[in-house]
Amino acid sequence: MQKDATIAEVNAAFVSSNEAFKVFSKLSLKHRAQLMRSIAAEIDSLGDELLIVAGKETNLPEARLRNERARTQFQLTSYAEACEKGDWLEARIDTAVPDKNPPKPDIRKMLVPLGPVVVFGAANFPFAYSTAGGDTASALAAGCTVIVKAHPAHPGTSELMAKAIHQAVAKNNLPAGVFIHLHGASFEVGEALVKHPLTKAVGFTGSLVGGRQLFDWACQRPEPIPVFAEMSSINPVFLLPGKMKEAAAETAKQYAGSITLGVGQFCTNPGLLIGIDNDDLKTFTSTLAEEITKLQPGTMLHAGISKNYAAKKDEALARPAVQVLAESETIAAENQGAPTIATVSGADFLKDPLLHREVFGPYSLLIRCKDAAELNTVAEYLEGQLTCTLMATTADMAAHATLVDIVKGRCGRFILNGVPTGVEVCLSMQHGGPYPATTDSRFGAVGADAIKRFARPLAFQNWPDDLLPDELKAANPLGIWRTVNNELMK
Amino acid sequence: MQKDATIAEVNAAFVSSNEAFKVFSKLSLKHRAQLMRSIAAEIDSLGDELLIVAGKETNLPEARLRNERARTQFQLTSYAEACEKGDWLEARIDTAVPDKNPPKPDIRKMLVPLGPVVVFGAANFPFAYSTAGGDTASALAAGCTVIVKAHPAHPGTSELMAKAIHQAVAKNNLPAGVFIHLHGASFEVGEALVKHPLTKAVGFTGSLVGGRQLFDWACQRPEPIPVFAEMSSINPVFLLPGKMKEAAAETAKQYAGSITLGVGQFCTNPGLLIGIDNDDLKTFTSTLAEEITKLQPGTMLHAGISKNYAAKKDEALARPAVQVLAESETIAAENQGAPTIATVSGADFLKDPLLHREVFGPYSLLIRCKDAAELNTVAEYLEGQLTCTLMATTADMAAHATLVDIVKGRCGRFILNGVPTGVEVCLSMQHGGPYPATTDSRFGAVGADAIKRFARPLAFQNWPDDLLPDELKAANPLGIWRTVNNELMK
Repeated sequence: MQKDATIAEVNAAFVSSNEAFKVFSKLSLKHRAQLMRSIAAEIDSLGDELLIVAGKETNLPEARLRNERARTQFQLTSYAEACEKGDWLEARIDTAVPDKNPPKPDIRKMLVPLGPVVVFGAANFPFAYSTAGGDTASALAAGCTVIVKAHPAHPGTSELMAKAIHQAVAKNNLPAGVFIHLHGASFEVGEALVKHPLTKAVGFTGSLVGGRQLFDWACQRPEPIPVFAEMSSINPVFLLPGKMKEAAAETAKQYAGSITLGVGQFCTNPGLLIGIDNDDLKTFTSTLAEEITKLQPGTMLHAGISKNYAAKKDEALARPAVQVLAESETIAAENQGAPTIATVSGADFLKDPLLHREVFGPYSLLIRCKDAAELNTVAEYLEGQLTCTLMATTADMAAHATLVDIVKGRCGRFILNGVPTGVEVCLSMQHGGPYPATTDSRFGAVGADAIKRFARPLAFQNWPDDLLPDELKAANPLGIWRTVNNELMK
Repeated sequence: MQKDATIAEVNAAFVSSNEAFKVFSKLSLKHRAQLMRSIAAEIDSLGDELLIVAGKETNLPEARLRNERARTQFQLTSYAEACEKGDWLEARIDTAVPDKNPPKPDIRKMLVPLGPVVVFGAANFPFAYSTAGGDTASALAAGCTVIVKAHPAHPGTSELMAKAIHQAVAKNNLPAGVFIHLHGASFEVGEALVKHPLTKAVGFTGSLVGGRQLFDWACQRPEPIPVFAEMSSINPVFLLPGKMKEAAAETAKQYAGSITLGVGQFCTNPGLLIGIDNDDLKTFTSTLAEEITKLQPGTMLHAGISKNYAAKKDEALARPAVQVLAESETIAAENQGAPTIATVSGADFLKDPLLHREVFGPYSLLIRCKDAAELNTVAEYLEGQLTCTLMATTADMAAHATLVDIVKGRCGRFILNGVPTGVEVCLSMQHGGPYPATTDSRFGAVGADAIKRFARPLAFQNWPDDLLPDELKAANPLGIWRTVNNELMK
């Protein structure tokens, strides 16, 4: 167990982070990208120790940890590439028109870094959304310095990742303040980090309660700052009748795997299955039940999460209108989560807000609607989601056009005939959504567009070419895409 | 005096706005642009009545109103063009890679409208930042429906503009709910508009107190929403020694005009002049004083603003450390604001937070710093600004590199050897800045990038081409710029 940072240490961290920002924010895109690539390389040189420590701290199997490590390195290197490419800078140039009345000055705009960014590590992704994860990579790419608060569930893993980043920072001859690593299991450390006057933005992945608290602190500051909290999502899946007639059993098998993947500890875990009650849905239900009973309970990330899973699940199952459909035949050992499926009628679901809440773990609730109208009503009642999925034939899509429109308004990623688990790291990915999925639906946490969360536009008016940043110079020395007099060009 | 909307009317407005959104948000870019162009045309057909009513309500001279009307129409037509062009959609396409392990699905992302947007009209721009102004134009371009709360200082002007928009909406066969116009002098109407569950974003231009209140209400909602409030800025101007040696008198004449333009009622009015105390600055000071005494007081927008100007100015001038440099020789009549320049030493300015506050009107405070170090300290103490300006020679820029870096962190638009008044409507313009200039420095209120304030990314995963929006179809039927597998192309 690591000692919490003191308030004095937090303050010192910001002084050093802010000093480092003065240097780092002026670094070329190439140099920033270089640092990010070095971090990826340093993670390699941590070797298997990283996997061993993380395995002990998170109970995640080695194969998953190897994949997550590779993904984390890919995030760093692919965001580095995007950083260098410069499309994200939104460079705009309008050249002067002296004979206009009044004369139009030369104006050039690009995104510039916000300042020191605080990142709160996630429990469920010890590598990809923690110390050296997506938020840190995005902030560095934007030119921001980073202060990470290690997740108390995997402090040793966080220490190792921090070591890799410190080494990369040193090897690139950058001030140590570019990246600062703190521990803080207590409420106080988080509060001090968000409320410090030098904090310019916050990245967080975790619970709704935690994320909302950070958001509220940030909004109450004399100078409010943006908080990008990715919090809670039940990722509804709509099982449309045509698709059920065509492939009920096959779909059930596919979803048994998705619901229980990683012991249901993904933010995109499908927690709601919604269909129209008929014989085809019964086929889906019975097949899903069969599959679930066969599946083994898995050890969850830590005791707190498994206790929370059991409690939230029991709370839901205790509702008189809810029936258990199936549970793993194997009794869950300590810290394990047992795959469980329950069911409720559409009418009862609509009556009970508790059933709309996320149950973090291998649990899913199947909602039986009496008809398409009730399906729409359920969709209307849903809160914001990271993902929504339609299992549907082409005919279903035509017959349920209203549902499709409703769902578009509820999510950040709209999947057709697939599963929400599995978040591809690419520019077109949107990992974000209307509240409470995230605190700001206009941004996402996966893919290079995540860089833009930590930057703001700065316009230069009437500057001589030699004093402008290279990104905006007339000759376009960096060869980046820019919009010049309203036309995109290189 | 118009009757305030009742809470029942506010609720009815949102029901109709939300219903209209279902239609309007699905309209093609072309059709959206058509509506915006029709609004511009309908403003023409209001004829001189608009100028007469606005003149009575705002005391603004006819020439200014003609220009502002033209600017308002240009905003509508140029944002319409940008809307149709589609660069702002940030269309991203990553095509499937089936043989990847796990297989990479086809993912396509674009910006989609947020929902009903509430716009609060501004007092100082009865056309360009009110009912049919920049916020309304941006929201419509994004595909959002709009509810405008008329500014109580020019309800008649607002009614006329609303009439033009209603006519355009009707002529384009769109539901009336696309645009709704309400009156509300009371606190309660504003609160109800921001707190209504169907509000998805808010646009505001006005005072710091007002904007912060809207922001706080929005953050305290169960579902927080973005508020784009453009609030307060004193637009500091740094008078560097080389430039003063070269052109002190000329610069003073230029600034006498900028400080008093439009009776100082522009959000980019230069309220602070900061230089190093020497003979050249004294030349600047005496010339500025001479010019100011010659200038006439002007009638301000309304009694409230002129009272407020007098009060805020007197409060500043009452500080023992502050001396009046010059005041218009003509006594200000009722509702008039008299051009006034005061001065204070850098040391005293740093000691007195009150002097950092905006005095809305033809007032500017000249800060005499003892040296370059104090100039930097003053810059460090400044809050966020819409604009900062450097009056500097090339040699000054080199000699004051630290100052240049500090200033970059304080503003949204950085002007070199010019005046901040005069905000060009173009893509490269940034009209926004760190708090308290605006509530979100990552966005701006002028230029087509303002459209993005009211949109969020939505990703489509594994959708068949024919069901995708045209913006994302394989054939690119709209011919818009899109990033396909990380490369920008048409």
